[in-house]
Amino acid sequence: MLGLMQDRPLSLPHVFHRAEQLFGHKRMVTARPDGGEDVVTVAQWAERVRRLATVLDTLGVSADGRVGTFCWNTSRHLELYLAAPCTGRVLHTLNIRLHPDQLVYVAEHAGDEVVFVDRSLLSLFWPHVDRLPGVRHVVVLDDGSDTEIPDDPRIRDHEELLAAAEPFAGRFVVEDENSAAAMCYTSGTTGNPKGVVYSHRSTMLHSLITLIADGPALSERDVVMPVVPMFHANAWGLPYGCLLAGTDLVFPGPDLSPAALVDLVERHRVTITGGVPTIWMNVLPLIDTRDLSSLRTIFCGGSAIPKALCEEYRTRLGVPLLHIWGMTETSPIGTMGVLGSHLDDASDEELAAARVRQGRPMPLVEMRIADPETGEQMPWDDHASGEVQAAGPWIASEYFRGEGGGSQFTDDGWLKTGDVATVDPYGSFRLVDRTKDLIKSGGEWIGTVELENEIMAHPKVAEAAVIGVAHPQWVERPLACVVVEEGQTLTLDELREFLEARVAKWWLPDALELIDEVPKTSVGKFSKKTLRERFDGYALPD
Amino acid sequence: MLGLMQDRPLSLPHVFHRAEQLFGHKRMVTARPDGGEDVVTVAQWAERVRRLATVLDTLGVSADGRVGTFCWNTSRHLELYLAAPCTGRVLHTLNIRLHPDQLVYVAEHAGDEVVFVDRSLLSLFWPHVDRLPGVRHVVVLDDGSDTEIPDDPRIRDHEELLAAAEPFAGRFVVEDENSAAAMCYTSGTTGNPKGVVYSHRSTMLHSLITLIADGPALSERDVVMPVVPMFHANAWGLPYGCLLAGTDLVFPGPDLSPAALVDLVERHRVTITGGVPTIWMNVLPLIDTRDLSSLRTIFCGGSAIPKALCEEYRTRLGVPLLHIWGMTETSPIGTMGVLGSHLDDASDEELAAARVRQGRPMPLVEMRIADPETGEQMPWDDHASGEVQAAGPWIASEYFRGEGGGSQFTDDGWLKTGDVATVDPYGSFRLVDRTKDLIKSGGEWIGTVELENEIMAHPKVAEAAVIGVAHPQWVERPLACVVVEEGQTLTLDELREFLEARVAKWWLPDALELIDEVPKTSVGKFSKKTLRERFDGYALPD
Repeated sequence: MLGLMQDRPLSLPHVFHRAEQLFGHKRMVTARPDGGEDVVTVAQWAERVRRLATVLDTLGVSADGRVGTFCWNTSRHLELYLAAPCTGRVLHTLNIRLHPDQLVYVAEHAGDEVVFVDRSLLSLFWPHVDRLPGVRHVVVLDDGSDTEIPDDPRIRDHEELLAAAEPFAGRFVVEDENSAAAMCYTSGTTGNPKGVVYSHRSTMLHSLITLIADGPALSERDVVMPVVPMFHANAWGLPYGCLLAGTDLVFPGPDLSPAALVDLVERHRVTITGGVPTIWMNVLPLIDTRDLSSLRTIFCGGSAIPKALCEEYRTRLGVPLLHIWGMTETSPIGTMGVLGSHLDDASDEELAAARVRQGRPMPLVEMRIADPETGEQMPWDDHASGEVQAAGPWIASEYFRGEGGGSQFTDDGWLKTGDVATVDPYGSFRLVDRTKDLIKSGGEWIGTVELENEIMAHPKVAEAAVIGVAHPQWVERPLACVVVEEGQTLTLDELREFLEARVAKWWLPDALELIDEVPKTSVGKFSKKTLRERFDGYALPD
Repeated sequence: MLGLMQDRPLSLPHVFHRAEQLFGHKRMVTARPDGGEDVVTVAQWAERVRRLATVLDTLGVSADGRVGTFCWNTSRHLELYLAAPCTGRVLHTLNIRLHPDQLVYVAEHAGDEVVFVDRSLLSLFWPHVDRLPGVRHVVVLDDGSDTEIPDDPRIRDHEELLAAAEPFAGRFVVEDENSAAAMCYTSGTTGNPKGVVYSHRSTMLHSLITLIADGPALSERDVVMPVVPMFHANAWGLPYGCLLAGTDLVFPGPDLSPAALVDLVERHRVTITGGVPTIWMNVLPLIDTRDLSSLRTIFCGGSAIPKALCEEYRTRLGVPLLHIWGMTETSPIGTMGVLGSHLDDASDEELAAARVRQGRPMPLVEMRIADPETGEQMPWDDHASGEVQAAGPWIASEYFRGEGGGSQFTDDGWLKTGDVATVDPYGSFRLVDRTKDLIKSGGEWIGTVELENEIMAHPKVAEAAVIGVAHPQWVERPLACVVVEEGQTLTLDELREFLEARVAKWWLPDALELIDEVPKTSVGKFSKKTLRERFDGYALPD
């Protein structure tokens, strides 16, 4: 027996038309490279989306063609977020920090027919365009930078195209909710990037989740500033969520300096923002210098949140960092570190520890942990650890064009995330490592992320990464690579003494190297691969 | 091009397994008729659901058989909410206030194979069971009342069945998200009730909506007491939403007296409750006598909220009533009266008026207003009114077994709600009438609900209903049927004088009748049909 409910697809035209119809009076602010600001109402923005829909036709983009973007966070970028999928095309957000060879690989692998490029980023993209014969047009979004615009028939001007186009009239329709809406390549630390293809259904459901009370809780009353790049897993779904909720939006554009960010928060009374830990580390010294009292939530994700950092925000600003966990393959929101009511009587220390957990799975997401070697499911006792596996309607089932051959998926179709975690009885996840970074010492696993967190709690430590180095007896032992605070120094004995009360004895690092900075990947994560290469053949002290 | 996301159905097993896995420690309290309380943890409740799944097999209920319930709001009723759909059956909540003929019609029309009946309601159901040959089992949920249990082979005891059943092991699976999960008959004021059949998909999406910040915003931290009956449009979706969010639950059982309700709120620190305006009218005199400070939200729906009532709650309790609008056909949440940020500078009076509007459509719901005669769409200027039409994945597309012949749906598949509203430019709906209650006077519509609201603002008026009576010149003119406050009286002149500043001159009632009470339907709505019958042929004064 079937239900007798209307057959309405979960597709992005709903997001567009809802925003246009209900929230036309709301505002989008974009910071320009020249220090000025562009302001549009949602009504004006929506009219531009309608023109852009016509432009995509005029440019001859195929019915389901890939529309590349090479842009900062701006309201123009958001035009493409809707115009491409609402006309049946597929938005492909290119990571502006990729190595040129990877950039070319990704744009070609995806089959981009046109790429929209911020003028301030043109010098990063244009030199490689001759290696991309499939890219027939490069549309420049003139953000006021002084980058020279090449004289080439492939170059088009966004504003000229919009001005010449009739706005699409009527309602956008995407009937098949399983059709592709957007794609994004994972920036894995090994091998070529792999494409994740979001459907309209997955994006719509994920957008709903950004509204829930025990999640991002986006509300019409919010002013949201996504610092997390829109070329990185849809900026955690915030842009679509904001349109669905009807928030005001503040786009920081190219200048992500701490001073620029706190300026924007103060000036526009931003209530919600989100970005990787590095951003909030850099902003921290400035939080007492401005009126940031409008902030009610600061999302943090991409890597583990150092406990000390979270506590600094909580005590000085009254707003702790709120952990979002996920990855490109999970759209990306899988869990959030919202505190459960069972912690109502917890101590300050317990609460501080709970806040930096990755937290509970979102509704519709199922998660489990499994032994990375045998696949056996591990208990939720917060002690046993295992690889995190995820299932749900916004979790990838495979990569574009079959890359990776399914090795990242279980036989029953769950995503193997590569993260290693414990889970407490309340379903709160706590990452302890990446499977590939785990150290196996004497037959036991050492979680390097967990160990790094404890090291970073040392007052002299700014950043720390732990890698395994070969050991004749134990197979591997931990080497701590530490960036100390300015003017400080640190010895192995000091560090071990500090850690003794905090971790198991056999986790204590066997060696310490002071380094200038922890190498990062293109999305700002610790690149332990680089560290492992640097310390290849490292001789541990006896 | 298709998205490459996991194919996971939106179906209720997810709600069950999520609650069992993450929220086993949460509590469900049910008030018993004898004044005591039953308390179970979600883990205990889930184990009972697993047993109940086996019981449904043992009783021989067909693979997609209808499982009737004739119950108050209790945790046992919630067992059925999950056990039936998670095993592929269809939950059919029977309205305990139906006339026996309608009850028999509905149970037979739905094809109920088994009906679960609260012992305290057995005397309302059992006398009619012989007219229901399809009902092979009547399972009694013994709530401690002293109603005699008939000696009949059809009678089974819920607890005995559970005790004898093995808990279903493993995971429930419903692969087809469009399959039926539950059904509920509309209690229309004319004709036979018509069956609305909810799918797993519609129920799941609707449940997500109960979590959103600008909606019910259910959170794990909440203690929710649904006063709205679970036999009425799934208690506004609260039960499923609460399981998905992981709230504590308080079920009031049979005693809906104001004293019992405020007792429960105070004792269990209820944060969210919801019910029809009559409930909150009756509770009002008691709100200063108890500590109700735990309440943060009081949902109100089913009929328009009198402005004075909403303001009383706001000023005395600090919590205004929050309007939910919908109907059985809309699962039911269509709009909510959450205030938009454009009202930040509004006067107290404007805010009071805004709070009793039906509000903005929920995400995924689309709404419009159309001339009830021509079908022409009306502008959103808060002046033009039209019949409310709704579309969305949890809006009915037709009635069970084709009843009504599609007359309640437009050619493009939207539901004609029968409600008449204006819409402001921010998309906030304001109901002014039911299409069948509209008065057409001299070619213009008079919205009777709007007129009633203004009449009920008169300090001497307790309740008021307005109907149209025949008029030789104007076709119809309004007759005000008024219940005055105890010890008061009211004249037509007094009423007209009061209304003059509030409504258009041609809306002023031509006549006034003082009545003892406004007749109500089985779900507590004004029955204007009864009033029209009573005043049929009414002679208006010259």
